[in-house]
Amino acid sequence: MKFTAGQVAELINGKVEGNKEAVITNVSKIEEGKPETLTFLANPKYTHYLYTTKADVVIINDSFVAEQTVKATLIRVPDAYKALAQLLEMYEQSQPKKSGIEQPSFIDSSATLGDFAYVGAFAYIGENVKIGNNVQIYPQAFVGDNVTIGDNSIVYAGAKIYKHCRVGENCIIHAGAVIGSDGFGFAPDENNEYKKIAQIGNVILEDNVEVGANCALDRATMGSTIIRRGAKLDNLIQIAHNVEVGENTVLAAQAGIAGSAKIGKNCMFGGQVGIAGHISIADNTKIGAQAGVGGNIKKEGQILMGSPVIDVKQFYKSSVIFRRLPELKTQLDQLQKEIDSLK
Amino acid sequence: MKFTAGQVAELINGKVEGNKEAVITNVSKIEEGKPETLTFLANPKYTHYLYTTKADVVIINDSFVAEQTVKATLIRVPDAYKALAQLLEMYEQSQPKKSGIEQPSFIDSSATLGDFAYVGAFAYIGENVKIGNNVQIYPQAFVGDNVTIGDNSIVYAGAKIYKHCRVGENCIIHAGAVIGSDGFGFAPDENNEYKKIAQIGNVILEDNVEVGANCALDRATMGSTIIRRGAKLDNLIQIAHNVEVGENTVLAAQAGIAGSAKIGKNCMFGGQVGIAGHISIADNTKIGAQAGVGGNIKKEGQILMGSPVIDVKQFYKSSVIFRRLPELKTQLDQLQKEIDSLK
Amino acid sequence: MKFTAGQVAELINGKVEGNKEAVITNVSKIEEGKPETLTFLANPKYTHYLYTTKADVVIINDSFVAEQTVKATLIRVPDAYKALAQLLEMYEQSQPKKSGIEQPSFIDSSATLGDFAYVGAFAYIGENVKIGNNVQIYPQAFVGDNVTIGDNSIVYAGAKIYKHCRVGENCIIHAGAVIGSDGFGFAPDENNEYKKIAQIGNVILEDNVEVGANCALDRATMGSTIIRRGAKLDNLIQIAHNVEVGENTVLAAQAGIAGSAKIGKNCMFGGQVGIAGHISIADNTKIGAQAGVGGNIKKEGQILMGSPVIDVKQFYKSSVIFRRLPELKTQLDQLQKEIDSLK
Repeated sequence: MKFTAGQVAELINGKVEGNKEAVITNVSKIEEGKPETLTFLANPKYTHYLYTTKADVVIINDSFVAEQTVKATLIRVPDAYKALAQLLEMYEQSQPKKSGIEQPSFIDSSATLGDFAYVGAFAYIGENVKIGNNVQIYPQAFVGDNVTIGDNSIVYAGAKIYKHCRVGENCIIHAGAVIGSDGFGFAPDENNEYKKIAQIGNVILEDNVEVGANCALDRATMGSTIIRRGAKLDNLIQIAHNVEVGENTVLAAQAGIAGSAKIGKNCMFGGQVGIAGHISIADNTKIGAQAGVGGNIKKEGQILMGSPVIDVKQFYKSSVIFRRLPELKTQLDQLQKEIDSLK
Repeated sequence: MKFTAGQVAELINGKVEGNKEAVITNVSKIEEGKPETLTFLANPKYTHYLYTTKADVVIINDSFVAEQTVKATLIRVPDAYKALAQLLEMYEQSQPKKSGIEQPSFIDSSATLGDFAYVGAFAYIGENVKIGNNVQIYPQAFVGDNVTIGDNSIVYAGAKIYKHCRVGENCIIHAGAVIGSDGFGFAPDENNEYKKIAQIGNVILEDNVEVGANCALDRATMGSTIIRRGAKLDNLIQIAHNVEVGENTVLAAQAGIAGSAKIGKNCMFGGQVGIAGHISIADNTKIGAQAGVGGNIKKEGQILMGSPVIDVKQFYKSSVIFRRLPELKTQLDQLQKEIDSLK
Repeated sequence: MKFTAGQVAELINGKVEGNKEAVITNVSKIEEGKPETLTFLANPKYTHYLYTTKADVVIINDSFVAEQTVKATLIRVPDAYKALAQLLEMYEQSQPKKSGIEQPSFIDSSATLGDFAYVGAFAYIGENVKIGNNVQIYPQAFVGDNVTIGDNSIVYAGAKIYKHCRVGENCIIHAGAVIGSDGFGFAPDENNEYKKIAQIGNVILEDNVEVGANCALDRATMGSTIIRRGAKLDNLIQIAHNVEVGENTVLAAQAGIAGSAKIGKNCMFGGQVGIAGHISIADNTKIGAQAGVGGNIKKEGQILMGSPVIDVKQFYKSSVIFRRLPELKTQLDQLQKEIDSLK
């Protein structure tokens, strides 16, 4: 690719400050900026790099006020991050898109494919599968019997969708993700041996859901495990049977949600968070990384941290004292002595 | 499917209380019960739904005493959960079962397959592999050289079994699980570079073992990593080299067991539990979610929690005070002042 | 295999103490030693097994001084673990190595393969892929368009490498690992819906990197997610977009590194460690299992533990008091009473 600062500014409705003819042939991060590259500044933590970056063009917020001389050409926009996202999207759209059916692949004769579908080599599409328009099924993906996949969804290489699951429109399922494995249900017998409880439900991903690489989403015992519209799951996440994840809720990597838990809308969970089974989490709850939730969260909009979770500010205050517990203990014992001597 | 309450009661030896002719065409969860569906009540937490559910038929414990009018027809059994499990099992058994060898698949000429085996398309079966009767190898599964798989076991789509591993009878390996990857063994040299230690052992799954989606079970450096008879592993679990997991032990999702740890029989570990290397855990140990165990657990039957683990009751008591540490510190400093003024 | 103690000693330049003609036909762990097997003693924790092991031959440190009679023949070497590693390596090298191109596989006509490459059945090699000499691509692996893989690297069964990623020489990627899935980047709109930020960067593994089973390494938004030369990643690890992992850094299983974090050289992280986004960790930092790091670690060579992390010794001291917090609270309240009565 080869653009001038002026051309880029036009694409994102920005104003050039500096050399309109500055040429860019690639993109870079501001802290590693190279000549002839375009970069951006949105996170204030990175502001100091602006003055030293070797990138020739920087997309920046209208509101930004430089405190030193800036060598790079600036493109000012109302929201630098959004403008960058727009550019990245244009770039992505300009890339060649896979299409057609590669051989060998396995498509059961009872399956139906929409228009412009891509089916990669070694992909497996079972009985009565229904696949919408513009769907991309990458190589080695597995789509079990009676699965439906809505328009414009992407199933990346080697993702596995067990039978009867339903994937909405505009979903993205990353490589290695497993949708619809058996819920973890066993009943102990009199010898302490576990008998498997058959898991006859399924998993439903509503529209606009993204599921990260190597996630595991279990099918319901009966009924459905549900990921609501617009929810986003990062990598390596565990979703147990009969869980419901609310609309536009975002789960960071390695989070785990135990069976039958119900997560509200617009929640944000940090990495490695754990949620116990059979509990409800209110809408708009934010939970910090590594936190553990053992009971219902009924009040909306809280920010929680710790295992078990408490209010985030309280958590940090208590953590500060935690590291000083030995001193505190010493102080207490010292007081004890002083009092004993006073008595 | 279409059954009457009377027919279902007959299948599970239950007594009908209400309309024997009530028709069911599907199953549902009690909190989401719909007309013409069958549901069950076992967990007392859900009792209040019984009085409002729209499900027409509910399987319920003999011992249950209603406190309000129940509209639904009840089927009383000694153990509602067990009866449900029985029904689910019957349903599962009535489903069509995959059989035969789909093409293209790769089966080395030296491999042997038992009777009624299923081998899905794009499955790979290496040299000298021995597969028992009624085994199901789903599409895109990988069975490395010299692997043996016992009768009635299921290897789901895309599961990977490295060479020399052994899988017992009636085992289930879910999609994406990896059995027999190299143990994580390296020796640092004088330049701080790590030289790989060859891992020449294997993994043994004894009979009736279930391994969840996207688990990773490493082969032993020498000898075997062993999962004993009847142990059940949820999804995304890490089992390091030379670990032994005892009979009928149950590990919840995202638990991780470090190298050479030996876990006893009939243990239950919660989600995201971590166990250090080279330690032993006594039989019947229960470990709460997110707990971390750094040393041997010698006494059987304990319930532990926290990182590092302590007795579960102690953990909850200490946690209650943890969140009040800032107050406690203030109280202490205040006392100090009072004493100083007394002196 | 069949060797005498004398022959083994010759292979590893050791001195035999005992019966040079002792025959070994297999290897075993010292605690499970069987007749006609070779074992080793390196970890002092296992010393007591030396006096009872049934293994006929034990590799042992020169410096070892027996405190009881040893029945087994000893082979003394300067470093028993290193000598064992050497033997395991010889054994591994003596095993047959896969080669050639199995059918059916999918190799795009624009891809190039080096000499002596192995491509397993159902492997997928995309457009313009460049694969070096002696590379082994196991069955069902996916190598996306424009990927390059350096000499002597191994990609195990079902590993997935998205387009544009680069794998160095002598790398090992285990089964189920995903390299180059989209970074987790979304921008919320005015309706709290998340719009995907296209992730147009890639992942670079430098030389001698090992990536464990079912890891997930996300591609950068722009630029590269980088795993530096000699770094070793255990299983089920999450590496977010734009992360950099330093040279010869070792991450244990289930660790997770959030976006744009920069991990130094020669670090060692325990299992289930979590690192927040946009922070830097100094070289030679050791972080204990399950710890969580929320801010920059600037001082090199620290050993840290806890969530949030503190010095490891401090952590253990505070943990001891944590479990006694209820007593401490009682003691404090008691003091309060005593003082009140003194006033």
